[in-house]
Amino acid sequence: MSGQETPDPTAPGEAVIAERTVTDWWSTAVSEIRPGKIRLRGYPVEELVGRVTFAEQIWLMLRGELPTAAQGRLLEAALVAAVDHGPQAPSIAAARMAATCGVGLNSAVATGANLLGDVHGGAGQQCMEVLRRVADGEDARSIVAEYRRRRSYLPGFGHRFHPRDPRRDPLLGLVREAVDAGEVPGDALRAGLALEAALAENRTRPVPMNIDGATAIIYAELGFPAELGRGLFVLSRSVGILAHAWEETEGGARIKGPLPRPLLAGYHGPAERHLGDSGSRT
Amino acid sequence: MSGQETPDPTAPGEAVIAERTVTDWWSTAVSEIRPGKIRLRGYPVEELVGRVTFAEQIWLMLRGELPTAAQGRLLEAALVAAVDHGPQAPSIAAARMAATCGVGLNSAVATGANLLGDVHGGAGQQCMEVLRRVADGEDARSIVAEYRRRRSYLPGFGHRFHPRDPRRDPLLGLVREAVDAGEVPGDALRAGLALEAALAENRTRPVPMNIDGATAIIYAELGFPAELGRGLFVLSRSVGILAHAWEETEGGARIKGPLPRPLLAGYHGPAERHLGDSGSRT
Amino acid sequence: MSGQETPDPTAPGEAVIAERTVTDWWSTAVSEIRPGKIRLRGYPVEELVGRVTFAEQIWLMLRGELPTAAQGRLLEAALVAAVDHGPQAPSIAAARMAATCGVGLNSAVATGANLLGDVHGGAGQQCMEVLRRVADGEDARSIVAEYRRRRSYLPGFGHRFHPRDPRRDPLLGLVREAVDAGEVPGDALRAGLALEAALAENRTRPVPMNIDGATAIIYAELGFPAELGRGLFVLSRSVGILAHAWEETEGGARIKGPLPRPLLAGYHGPAERHLGDSGSRT
Amino acid sequence: MSGQETPDPTAPGEAVIAERTVTDWWSTAVSEIRPGKIRLRGYPVEELVGRVTFAEQIWLMLRGELPTAAQGRLLEAALVAAVDHGPQAPSIAAARMAATCGVGLNSAVATGANLLGDVHGGAGQQCMEVLRRVADGEDARSIVAEYRRRRSYLPGFGHRFHPRDPRRDPLLGLVREAVDAGEVPGDALRAGLALEAALAENRTRPVPMNIDGATAIIYAELGFPAELGRGLFVLSRSVGILAHAWEETEGGARIKGPLPRPLLAGYHGPAERHLGDSGSRT
Repeated sequence: MSGQETPDPTAPGEAVIAERTVTDWWSTAVSEIRPGKIRLRGYPVEELVGRVTFAEQIWLMLRGELPTAAQGRLLEAALVAAVDHGPQAPSIAAARMAATCGVGLNSAVATGANLLGDVHGGAGQQCMEVLRRVADGEDARSIVAEYRRRRSYLPGFGHRFHPRDPRRDPLLGLVREAVDAGEVPGDALRAGLALEAALAENRTRPVPMNIDGATAIIYAELGFPAELGRGLFVLSRSVGILAHAWEETEGGARIKGPLPRPLLAGYHGPAERHLGDSGSRT
Repeated sequence: MSGQETPDPTAPGEAVIAERTVTDWWSTAVSEIRPGKIRLRGYPVEELVGRVTFAEQIWLMLRGELPTAAQGRLLEAALVAAVDHGPQAPSIAAARMAATCGVGLNSAVATGANLLGDVHGGAGQQCMEVLRRVADGEDARSIVAEYRRRRSYLPGFGHRFHPRDPRRDPLLGLVREAVDAGEVPGDALRAGLALEAALAENRTRPVPMNIDGATAIIYAELGFPAELGRGLFVLSRSVGILAHAWEETEGGARIKGPLPRPLLAGYHGPAERHLGDSGSRT
Repeated sequence: MSGQETPDPTAPGEAVIAERTVTDWWSTAVSEIRPGKIRLRGYPVEELVGRVTFAEQIWLMLRGELPTAAQGRLLEAALVAAVDHGPQAPSIAAARMAATCGVGLNSAVATGANLLGDVHGGAGQQCMEVLRRVADGEDARSIVAEYRRRRSYLPGFGHRFHPRDPRRDPLLGLVREAVDAGEVPGDALRAGLALEAALAENRTRPVPMNIDGATAIIYAELGFPAELGRGLFVLSRSVGILAHAWEETEGGARIKGPLPRPLLAGYHGPAERHLGDSGSRT
Repeated sequence: MSGQETPDPTAPGEAVIAERTVTDWWSTAVSEIRPGKIRLRGYPVEELVGRVTFAEQIWLMLRGELPTAAQGRLLEAALVAAVDHGPQAPSIAAARMAATCGVGLNSAVATGANLLGDVHGGAGQQCMEVLRRVADGEDARSIVAEYRRRRSYLPGFGHRFHPRDPRRDPLLGLVREAVDAGEVPGDALRAGLALEAALAENRTRPVPMNIDGATAIIYAELGFPAELGRGLFVLSRSVGILAHAWEETEGGARIKGPLPRPLLAGYHGPAERHLGDSGSRT
């Protein structure tokens, strides 16, 4: 080995090390796996099976406690609403292509999920951060003005595709009911509606909340941190990604590219040239 | 461009092409997205929100129809059971490390899901194929003998970690109830138990079904093709992957490797040598 | 914790464990990293910098020894030849889309590389396995007949796009020179040409070797195992993947899908229906 | 279909669409692929094979023109220097684990590359941005003070592992030679040395440039934009990722986790509890 050349004073001076050092390095509060035992956030898994829904299990795993029935229903609705937006979305298209390339469905799902980055999958998370600012006392109109100055979209509002996102109303309706029943505080709902109203001022065409905005309200009302807004979206959209990848697998396509044959990608680079041409290397 | 040099007789000879050609290339039966409309397997998404569970939505997206209540419950149980097996699993460990590397939670989840390949995530799918053989009339004992000859594990049975997988009994209990109620046919359950019995013959220590076997029975009873057995496992395990990745994100670790400092990976390659040494290149 | 409930006889019975156990678990013969020292296959990295080419470094890392100059040149040629095949390829298209989704170039490259699976990126590896059979004495004609019976393509021959792959001739020319100079054995070249000849028999249009076949011959002549044929292709194609991803990043596209607007993906699923319709769930 | 319900005024009103629309959507200046033709940045691929090195090909693909010999040598050195840093790095460890999970080497490489995010793989890119500020006239001392105020590391300087990164000197030596020969401008080298000197002031232990800083200087001297600094690092490190993944594949490990058996990950969550316990859901 090369222990002799290790001048680092933090290097081990002994042949043994507390087992704790390495098992602690991988220590977790999520699950305890011991021979014959699987406890998730303290609950033996065999007690959860058949007694909690998948959405409740998601909550337990992420939050550490089980949700109330009302919390579970809201989470369920948000997860149901965001599963798919068709092959126009790059995450879906990439997963469909992956499924034709000889990788398993696991890699096809991974391909799609990987694309839900700041731009494609981050609007919900960003909207939650804006909702927080309003809930903390900032004026919705000032925030709208700030985004307009920056010529940037307010995350969670407007849709390049839908004049009015059909998922907005049923989701906000469920939040409204939960607020009225005292199940959730209502701060995020009020913040979202204030932003929507501020956006509509002095415009002939309003800019209604989209799926990212409506689910951001739900996740905020449920107390999820903003980053988990993205995480939950990934779990939800993975369902659509899988359904689309499976459709390609079943269809038997191989090495499916974006263009049907005989179409060829355009080209706008330099015309044919040769090594040794004037201006190029010999 | 270079149309002139295209000798391929299948190349387009005209400046226009039916719009259909390209939109059909991306055609799907999963979802219809039109301005203001999102229909999933024909259902307007706004009707599904608040009325179907997340597990039922998963079924609808993958199968094209909504499940019965009994089918939904079984699917829910299988999804709940498989969410996590702790940081010993490479999929979980890799996602935890990813979360410390400055990529989003989407990429951390993708990292974990990507690892659920034939060896780490394929046992359920492979078990479903074996269940099919037994349900189609092959003798369970012959199949067990075949695997023993090949010195290979029967997928879905035994666990390198759990003497008896705690998820087996509650899952099989739910299947049993559904069979007794006439909700599912029972072929896969009978096949799985026959294989388990054949494996136990002439052994002091039985080799009970594991999570992959028990969920394979559920997915087979519900009529899912074997490949979707893997797909559903990916959806389920993604929950644990996300929970673990989030735990690292919250903890603030940066560039977490497998070994705590000051431990250094061992080395068993050639001793130090130099360009120009005898036997190496000058 | 839960040591008390661990009946597994292999569980640790002591509070300490040899440091070796965990550092050996991660032991490698590839590189030795110690404070102030980085040795790659035994060579201090500072001696390699400026003295070996990138292709020679690739060889050293994968094979453990430095190549001869002739070996290095052949590897260089194969890596140069396979870098790109344009946005028609799903790996390139997916990486381009990824680059527009708010993930880093690292994730865009990963997206493309991940798609080089058995179908999209495995032909070279599969061709190397066929070359091995011929080199080991099997008759090329029988192998061609076997593939024809299975109605499957012979990996490494023919191209759905190019009547004659322009990369074939320069690559085989370099191999021929190396064989003539006694630098490589020539078995794989002879095997490949025998297969090509067998494929051409009784056909008006020959089925010439493609890039996968030509690079398979090079990698086989150089003694790489078949699986590394795929690995080397991944390294080579990653260059094109990066170039294309960067072109999208520079271009500033956001959430680029496969279809330009206003085109919408086709739909061929069920017509609009509603919860409670006859035949669907209430 | 559903054309009738499309109120969007941008929707197509005709059955045909210019072929251009879709082929232009995928248009590129990187490569022109036509039947029988593959031109990379204008050069027929068959002219490049055997005449340019892999590093020169990388430059051509990313920059659009071939490098001078001096430029090629510097790029080669930077790519050679960064290939590996052993299994302590999460990118390497994750790829090694992936290789044991039943996915191809392509997915193992993708797993590793995906982890080279802002924190694990972005220091070079970030350093290039800082070098630009100094080259544009900002004072190195002020920048160092700014980072100290923020209590954040100056990207490209210092190493948590190496007191002095052994790759610094040979890389800077090559840059110095190229500056002296008038091959590169020298701005980035001067900027990097100024930052290093500013960091060393009033300290007993200096904070020398690390691999990210040294390669950042090279990439900046060569005129690469900062984002491609990350891209080039990904190409380089992919070599080490592949070598390590292949070592696991060859070794035959299956489902390799971070801990050798019998070690179990620690657990610090709630003690065992049950549905219905006080404080938990019934």
